Amino acid sequence: MIEVEVKFAVPEDMNLRALLQTRFGLNSGFCCEESDEYFQHPCRDFDVTDEALRIRRSDQAITFTWKGPRLDLLTKTREEREISFESAEASAQEAGLRAILMALGFTSAGRVHKRRELFSVPWQQQTVTLSFDQVTGLPPFVELEIVCEESERAAATSALLSLASSLGLNQSERRSYLELVLEKA
Amino acid sequence: MIEVEVKFAVPEDMNLRALLQTRFGLNSGFCCEESDEYFQHPCRDFDVTDEALRIRRSDQAITFTWKGPRLDLLTKTREEREISFESAEASAQEAGLRAILMALGFTSAGRVHKRRELFSVPWQQQTVTLSFDQVTGLPPFVELEIVCEESERAAATSALLSLASSLGLNQSERRSYLELVLEKA
Repeated sequence: MIEVEVKFAVPEDMNLRALLQTRFGLNSGFCCEESDEYFQHPCRDFDVTDEALRIRRSDQAITFTWKGPRLDLLTKTREEREISFESAEASAQEAGLRAILMALGFTSAGRVHKRRELFSVPWQQQTVTLSFDQVTGLPPFVELEIVCEESERAAATSALLSLASSLGLNQSERRSYLELVLEKA
Repeated sequence: MIEVEVKFAVPEDMNLRALLQTRFGLNSGFCCEESDEYFQHPCRDFDVTDEALRIRRSDQAITFTWKGPRLDLLTKTREEREISFESAEASAQEAGLRAILMALGFTSAGRVHKRRELFSVPWQQQTVTLSFDQVTGLPPFVELEIVCEESERAAATSALLSLASSLGLNQSERRSYLELVLEKA
């Protein structure tokens, strides 16, 4: 599957929640907290290859994800391989997976902690996941995402950019939250 | 934790089940099937570093394990980092984790499939896990194992070798099942 994604800093004068209410009748979204750790490869420089490896802990779930290089210049679209599992001992599982990566020579590249609010927005016969993100240490961002097959990528990209433009979101941010957090540090 | 482990080919004239019955009153053990895949590291030769990385699927559980180099010449004792989780979709989870490893440049080093029968044997104030293993393509083997802290390693090794000797098991096999399967192929 392909994750077609585009991200924008929320303009200071924009009331995003009010806009979603007025335009789409959406009240509150689904809230979750995500604690992410990113890793560097033992023999490939992910800054050069534009890959990412992440362990995400969110409540009782662990998600382990590899992301391939971004596939175009406008969006954050990239290939993804992922497994996710629930566990009453999510914290111990996160530590266990991290210990395996360390033993294999991976190193920690940094952590990102965020509170997300997720909305499902119907747009051009598709369902866009809109995430209103409060990342620790950064101003608010909004991410628009469609997960689809490679063959649907052009249509998904076009839908995301059209929705963004319609919401008054124009300059997309291609840097990852990790990059933005590390630049601020 | 340290996995102190020693393995023996079951002598052709030995009736292991009868011996466990007579000596320890143990009837049948806990049976399970394990399907293991081993991986090579993208930039370290595990044959040289004597490490192992494995995905194990056993019924509804996935276990992801790194094993460090063997720590002595007599046993298969080694450091271990492991996570295990249950899933109704174990097969899809195995495929997902495998796909992440492939994306990171790991390569498959081979598969081992076995049927194990596990017994708990009390010996010298310790509990030894005895596994009677029928590996596809190999003659029967028996593994004796104690998982313990590093500080208890000497006592655990001594208990395992004494139990083995008492059962008439003398020449330990330090090669892994994967190595034995690949040598046969």
